[in-house]
Amino acid sequence: MQGVATDTICALSTPPGIGGLAVVRISGPEAIAIVDRCFRGKRPLHEVPTHTIHYGHLLRPNGSIADEVTCAVFRAPHSYTGEDVVEITCHGGYLMYRLVLESLTFHGARIAQPGEFTRRAFLNGRMDLVQVESIAEIIHTQVIAAQELAIKQLGGSFTAWARRIRDSLQQVASLVEVELDFAHEDIEFADRQQLVEQLQSIQADCRRFIRSYTGAQILRHGLRVGIVGYPNAGKSSLFNAILGRQRAIVSPQPGTTRDYLEDTVHVGQALLRLYDTAGFRESEDAIEVEGIALARSILEQCHVILVVNDLTEGQEHSDALAASLRAEFPTLHHLLVQNKRDLCSSIPEARSEHELFISARTGEGIEQLLARLEDVVRHSTAELDLALINQRHVESLQRIEQAVDSALRALADNLPGECIAIDLRTAAEELSTLIGERWTNDLLDRIFSQYCIGK
Amino acid sequence: MQGVATDTICALSTPPGIGGLAVVRISGPEAIAIVDRCFRGKRPLHEVPTHTIHYGHLLRPNGSIADEVTCAVFRAPHSYTGEDVVEITCHGGYLMYRLVLESLTFHGARIAQPGEFTRRAFLNGRMDLVQVESIAEIIHTQVIAAQELAIKQLGGSFTAWARRIRDSLQQVASLVEVELDFAHEDIEFADRQQLVEQLQSIQADCRRFIRSYTGAQILRHGLRVGIVGYPNAGKSSLFNAILGRQRAIVSPQPGTTRDYLEDTVHVGQALLRLYDTAGFRESEDAIEVEGIALARSILEQCHVILVVNDLTEGQEHSDALAASLRAEFPTLHHLLVQNKRDLCSSIPEARSEHELFISARTGEGIEQLLARLEDVVRHSTAELDLALINQRHVESLQRIEQAVDSALRALADNLPGECIAIDLRTAAEELSTLIGERWTNDLLDRIFSQYCIGK
Repeated sequence: MQGVATDTICALSTPPGIGGLAVVRISGPEAIAIVDRCFRGKRPLHEVPTHTIHYGHLLRPNGSIADEVTCAVFRAPHSYTGEDVVEITCHGGYLMYRLVLESLTFHGARIAQPGEFTRRAFLNGRMDLVQVESIAEIIHTQVIAAQELAIKQLGGSFTAWARRIRDSLQQVASLVEVELDFAHEDIEFADRQQLVEQLQSIQADCRRFIRSYTGAQILRHGLRVGIVGYPNAGKSSLFNAILGRQRAIVSPQPGTTRDYLEDTVHVGQALLRLYDTAGFRESEDAIEVEGIALARSILEQCHVILVVNDLTEGQEHSDALAASLRAEFPTLHHLLVQNKRDLCSSIPEARSEHELFISARTGEGIEQLLARLEDVVRHSTAELDLALINQRHVESLQRIEQAVDSALRALADNLPGECIAIDLRTAAEELSTLIGERWTNDLLDRIFSQYCIGK
Repeated sequence: MQGVATDTICALSTPPGIGGLAVVRISGPEAIAIVDRCFRGKRPLHEVPTHTIHYGHLLRPNGSIADEVTCAVFRAPHSYTGEDVVEITCHGGYLMYRLVLESLTFHGARIAQPGEFTRRAFLNGRMDLVQVESIAEIIHTQVIAAQELAIKQLGGSFTAWARRIRDSLQQVASLVEVELDFAHEDIEFADRQQLVEQLQSIQADCRRFIRSYTGAQILRHGLRVGIVGYPNAGKSSLFNAILGRQRAIVSPQPGTTRDYLEDTVHVGQALLRLYDTAGFRESEDAIEVEGIALARSILEQCHVILVVNDLTEGQEHSDALAASLRAEFPTLHHLLVQNKRDLCSSIPEARSEHELFISARTGEGIEQLLARLEDVVRHSTAELDLALINQRHVESLQRIEQAVDSALRALADNLPGECIAIDLRTAAEELSTLIGERWTNDLLDRIFSQYCIGK
């Protein structure tokens, strides 16, 4: 598939802004020839070996010097894209790279679309689709653990799993299909018991990966923690205490927070995304009623609900609220946070492991609360080992799991080999789609739309 | 002077942010050894030739893979700093380069100070001080013409002038000093008439460079244009018309603009920095009085004053204001802008070339006005050919000019050769300081404080 593109593309590959260096990348069949038209070094680049660097002047179309640059030459197929590539390092800032791009386009290159370099790398077989997606993860994530996982995925661990499963499914499907030719002789080339075990193991893998999607989302975007409670329980004070700064306006007036506030904080390796909501109470005030409705819609998207209770009102004061939220959001983690412990002469016993005693004002107990939230993150992301599952992977894995499930049921029902073989082929094909051995332009467009220009 | 540094420094050399690539640079005697401790490629970098690129994995201190990277190796003295340098290209984004820096510092490098790479380049004789300053200009300017000039200066044109003058001054000073040994024999090794001409030419050069500072400032930061006039003359409408968008709030109510507004616009190669000021009128309103005082302080820093007159009030309506401003700011360019021509049935004759007829509302005449402002920029920057003079250069050139002037007066007064020789030596030494052959740490600190990290 190499050299699928006939034109030559260029773009700034480093972020725009003030910095010492900027790198402009050009890739395509004419890359070296185009640079040679506007680069003056000791030797023209078409004469130099691959993977070497050359100092010289880059000229503007009018012949004046745009900049002193170095050109790094990568000859096909040993480059990022698999095509001839030149990486031109010029001075940083807002202007210089534009002069370089102006010269390159003047001499025949065109500006690349977002992700177009990586798209060519994919089309030229330099990487599979899962690796393509890992690169977007690596560039965009702000969480080290997510980056570590994306690097593993870029290294091919998830692809290797998919390929291994795909190959074994194809192999079994072939055996089952061969049996069909000997249908009247009642020969079994594929051991049924072994096949069931193999499919069950694949199904378990798929389910584990699908489950890990929530963990991947938590890793990527943070654990979403909703802070709720009756008015004046100290929700905004807790919000500020966790953030370690005055983010929300705090006042003794009940109902101070009407919108919701959102902010993030890194705790150890975990990223927390906190939502401070309006107090829950019966209210006539239209703005407050709307605030409470908003709070409910926020909670729907949370992983953890912190019900804040004002301990000076009594330990059980918010129990009804906590119970109704547990009933309304049964799949979430719930914690009952007894606030204002500094104002109580004696602290009662915790009635469950989900009850904590803190003071948002003095900071007492905040560390323990954070440790609990970190635990939730650790537990949710524990199953992430090979891959950072995204929406596309989940959908693909669900189709694979269903096909495998259907094959298992066909086996249990002693259905004819054709039925089993079809399911196995379906699962294998879906695995090929997952790693991008089968793809459509639509799919590629969707994936590369997340990319930045210059990658 | 090569290899003055004993430690090895590293930094991100590209701007932080979302992008395809990031480049981390490491420079110093241990650069290659340190990278080898955390880089796994086909061959260790200490075995590879200079100016070659190597693909591999960069490892974190715990041995896990931080990223797939390419390492470009530059061996001393053929590198930016004159030391051994490795440029590590990793994936872009906010996190990856930190992992790379973490590994490099773990293995013995330290994070560079702003401008420290360039400082080493200077200390190792890879560039002079004027070139060092050009690099800061190149990175920070947003104006192409300023960048072009900085590139010329980086190429050494201004340095070559300074060096040539310095050498000839030293030569003449030596001749004059030799004469002193033969004082009783009344011999003149240096032809006095020729010496006078030579010094006059140097003095003229210095004065031309000093004059060009204003032009350099206009090129760098734009032509500052103050828009003034009586209330309701249409100043804010003109401001918007020049910017090509609704920036200032416009209302038929006189005195709408109380603060001043500032914005910039590129016109051709020129950068205009516009100031829309409060209307000038007798006022009791404290806010307005303050606005007018503010307007005067703005005008003091402008290059051009546009007095806007409401033509429907009569062509001479603002003459008194225009005259008083000409008297107050005699060195600035003044233009009388007759606005609202669209509301007048007949347009009178211009009484001078400094009078223009426009309509901010319809856009009539705006192009001619912009062309006039562009002319001012072109005229102010016409003398810029070798250098983009900065404050340090101006101060240095003034000292050189004074020393040369003193020598010329000593010659005219037939003072003894010692006096002349001292002036010539003073000027020559100042030229050495200008290009950085003589420097102090204070001076370097001042220059590199403008630099970004990673350069």
